Amino acid sequence: MTQEARVRPQRGGRAGRSERKVAVRQMPWRLVENPFRPIEVYSAEQIEAIHQASFSVLRDQGMRFLSAEARDIMRRAGCRVDEDHRVYFDPSLVMEQIAKAPSTCTLHALNPARSLPIGGRVQNFATVGGPPNVTDIERGKRPGNWADYIDLVKLAQSLNIVHLHAGYAPEPIDVEVAVRHLKCTEAMLSFSDKAIFAFAHSEERVHDAYEMVRLAHGLDDAAMQAAPRFYAIINTNSPLQLDPRMAAGTLAVARRRQLLVVTPFTLAGAMAPVTLPGALVLQNAEALAVLTLAQLASPGCPVVYGGFTSNVDMRSGAPAFGTPEYIKAALAGGQLARRYNLPYRSSNTNASNAPDAQSTYEGAMSIWGAVMGGVNIMAHGLGWLEGGLTASYEKYIIDAEMLQTMAAFLTPEVVDAETLALDAIREVGPGGHFFGAQHTLRHYETAFYSPLLSDWRNFEQWTAAGALDATQRARGIWRQLLADYEPPQLDAGCQEAMRDYAARRAADGGAPFRD
Amino acid sequence: MTQEARVRPQRGGRAGRSERKVAVRQMPWRLVENPFRPIEVYSAEQIEAIHQASFSVLRDQGMRFLSAEARDIMRRAGCRVDEDHRVYFDPSLVMEQIAKAPSTCTLHALNPARSLPIGGRVQNFATVGGPPNVTDIERGKRPGNWADYIDLVKLAQSLNIVHLHAGYAPEPIDVEVAVRHLKCTEAMLSFSDKAIFAFAHSEERVHDAYEMVRLAHGLDDAAMQAAPRFYAIINTNSPLQLDPRMAAGTLAVARRRQLLVVTPFTLAGAMAPVTLPGALVLQNAEALAVLTLAQLASPGCPVVYGGFTSNVDMRSGAPAFGTPEYIKAALAGGQLARRYNLPYRSSNTNASNAPDAQSTYEGAMSIWGAVMGGVNIMAHGLGWLEGGLTASYEKYIIDAEMLQTMAAFLTPEVVDAETLALDAIREVGPGGHFFGAQHTLRHYETAFYSPLLSDWRNFEQWTAAGALDATQRARGIWRQLLADYEPPQLDAGCQEAMRDYAARRAADGGAPFRD
Repeated sequence: MTQEARVRPQRGGRAGRSERKVAVRQMPWRLVENPFRPIEVYSAEQIEAIHQASFSVLRDQGMRFLSAEARDIMRRAGCRVDEDHRVYFDPSLVMEQIAKAPSTCTLHALNPARSLPIGGRVQNFATVGGPPNVTDIERGKRPGNWADYIDLVKLAQSLNIVHLHAGYAPEPIDVEVAVRHLKCTEAMLSFSDKAIFAFAHSEERVHDAYEMVRLAHGLDDAAMQAAPRFYAIINTNSPLQLDPRMAAGTLAVARRRQLLVVTPFTLAGAMAPVTLPGALVLQNAEALAVLTLAQLASPGCPVVYGGFTSNVDMRSGAPAFGTPEYIKAALAGGQLARRYNLPYRSSNTNASNAPDAQSTYEGAMSIWGAVMGGVNIMAHGLGWLEGGLTASYEKYIIDAEMLQTMAAFLTPEVVDAETLALDAIREVGPGGHFFGAQHTLRHYETAFYSPLLSDWRNFEQWTAAGALDATQRARGIWRQLLADYEPPQLDAGCQEAMRDYAARRAADGGAPFRD
Repeated sequence: MTQEARVRPQRGGRAGRSERKVAVRQMPWRLVENPFRPIEVYSAEQIEAIHQASFSVLRDQGMRFLSAEARDIMRRAGCRVDEDHRVYFDPSLVMEQIAKAPSTCTLHALNPARSLPIGGRVQNFATVGGPPNVTDIERGKRPGNWADYIDLVKLAQSLNIVHLHAGYAPEPIDVEVAVRHLKCTEAMLSFSDKAIFAFAHSEERVHDAYEMVRLAHGLDDAAMQAAPRFYAIINTNSPLQLDPRMAAGTLAVARRRQLLVVTPFTLAGAMAPVTLPGALVLQNAEALAVLTLAQLASPGCPVVYGGFTSNVDMRSGAPAFGTPEYIKAALAGGQLARRYNLPYRSSNTNASNAPDAQSTYEGAMSIWGAVMGGVNIMAHGLGWLEGGLTASYEKYIIDAEMLQTMAAFLTPEVVDAETLALDAIREVGPGGHFFGAQHTLRHYETAFYSPLLSDWRNFEQWTAAGALDATQRARGIWRQLLADYEPPQLDAGCQEAMRDYAARRAADGGAPFRD
């Protein structure tokens, strides 16, 4: 199956202090395909009811677009627009427009071997995006900063189970806002050859990302727009509103034919109805409204249907993740995306304040919801903590282990005479063992998944080695991965052109926020 | 949905030292039904190939039964038996015999409201069974003992998500072997009114358990045998062998019409072929052979098809659990059980030495495999640690949270005008929030799952409250549950009769092991 081998922590290490000398062995890079039928949390009739209800919202309530340009586009397409800036959608227009979106596309990476099919059965895992803080178990929680940003970009490059970057983990708030996007994009394009993300906060920032990616790839505009080479995420301002910045980002990304992921963040009980079907109605209406805008602005542009419905704790108002409601919403989101023949984005989430058992089971529940929902881009796949407020180095490794496990689980088994092993069963006979069987010798090296983080030694050996729990061992693994980081092989001329662009733009003052 | 409310740890507690004063609020007792189509890891053709291969093993290799009585029963049914004590099975005999087993039955508890349907879509969660050690984060790992045994029986009674007991968690090695089964059975029948387990180590022990359960229920033999009131687990001695003790237990349980769970422990690479299909062939052959024996001895007796296929680490020989192979085997076991129209047993496992992130993700993977495999009895559902060598109080609570989450996830959603919430979406409008909406006020108290262990407070509140991680908080929860333990209401006369029996048998010397 895979050639990876188990990490062997040093003997005699102490909690949080052991140093590793052996390279981390991990699962090789692979595209992950889910061969299983998705879990359907709603019947076809129930999905149809959610679909119909969301279309009645779009028709009767409309959605408020706080961008004159966006309203104009939709007005020209025949939508009614009122003085409250609400745009009302005819259902047939919505269906007609979203039918223009491709059901699959390829998100190209600097390294062609790291390019990603988006859609169908392929499931891609992204790093955590957007947390303003960062933490590890030795240094504790701190504001996002440039040094940690670079380390997490390197970690994303080093871990084979990471398919694509997110923006930015953590947000480097010690870098001036006007040039942050330039520096962060340059870092992703220099320290990694995997598919990247751009923040869609304004036309100007999207343009900068576009130009830098184009130069790093050495392409002209026609080639750059033939297939997406970065992706961006648009969050609506639920309920039923899109702010000017997100509207501008939508148009900027769509017109440049890059991959646009539209994700309403519909927390049931807060920004969405307290019942899950109602929250999904809102998610669906908002996602389809923005996707319609994108298709009107740039027919056929590649898009992804994003679902991010969870719930709040009704006692405190705190957001909750990885809950039963979250699992159902992740599965239902996939049903809705398939209803419209669109790729699907979901997330690996948790609300824990530490990289502990809670962060792990809430994450595991999210991952199963996403995977069995047919996710195509799993946002926040690695490293999310504290409801997205913090990127955690140790959670990154815990998530890597869970995602490697899923990747191996999703690999189909071969059933044939060799794997049915009747000869081995005959050879060993009653009461024997298979350790020395010919069949075992033929298969043992690649028979089983080899973990990144799990320690399967017995209690005595584990105790003698320092009795490190999984979170403590995770620290050793990410440190070793960073120590062993190897920069990708990239075209020097393209790199120089990309960097020159960023330097020139920075010298010109970058892109200050203008609301 | 449920009426449970969130546990609120005391403010200002310190790691491992906080005391709880508020009662633990938890999900109410419920039967869990899985409405989803199981995940099928193998195609129908592949399952048929595994089926055919296992039948060829039964026909051509046979299985060694180290019990003359068992061999006689099968010889009389037409099986060839050789001088190696191997019994060879005609496939048609196996299919004919297992067809006699009921596809569903009811496992009765002392409290009729705690009786359990076994089979179909009902998924029952059992406590960890059999660990020789016990641990908690304050007192550390220690040999199984009577005080901890009683505490874990009480915890099983107190936690609503526990459907049935296992035997024994932990094994109380400070209780003399000859009377251990008497004391343990008496404790389960006194401190709990949930469905119970009996060890099937000999005819004598099964008879004692049967008599004690019968007396505790106040039944005659006919009523006691009309439907099972305890269950027992038979593990084969893989590969292809059944020892005299397990054979005697099989016959003793089957003849008394109690619930017999037959579970080969087929660790791929050690006691089973290194390829997963081969390990499943062995699992299937062994399970069906013993189930055939049970049906021959007691036609129509209630049985469960048990699957426990995992793999070893081929570098160290250490058993591994919650791996990709484990998930696949758990799903495939369900496919095989359905192939024979039998209820299915799987397990919640992990190989971690601590109640940490590893124990949690390996457990979550096992749980998802079992649940989506269509499990009917999830053995070791709560508290298993260290590959089954230790029962963990904290893991018990972590597992309870995961199983509560699954129970809520498996509860079907209602989709109707009220839950689609169009009125609420209209009422709130763009840019508003749903906190005060009429629809929210109607639903908020029961809208969402309320956790047992998860802490959703923000980082500052969580830090002020002592920054306890989930494992540390779990300690507070199990301590509170034990402090608040309430004994069940039981019939005094029946209790006395049951205790008299146990006392009399103990006075006579109990049941010493006789191999």
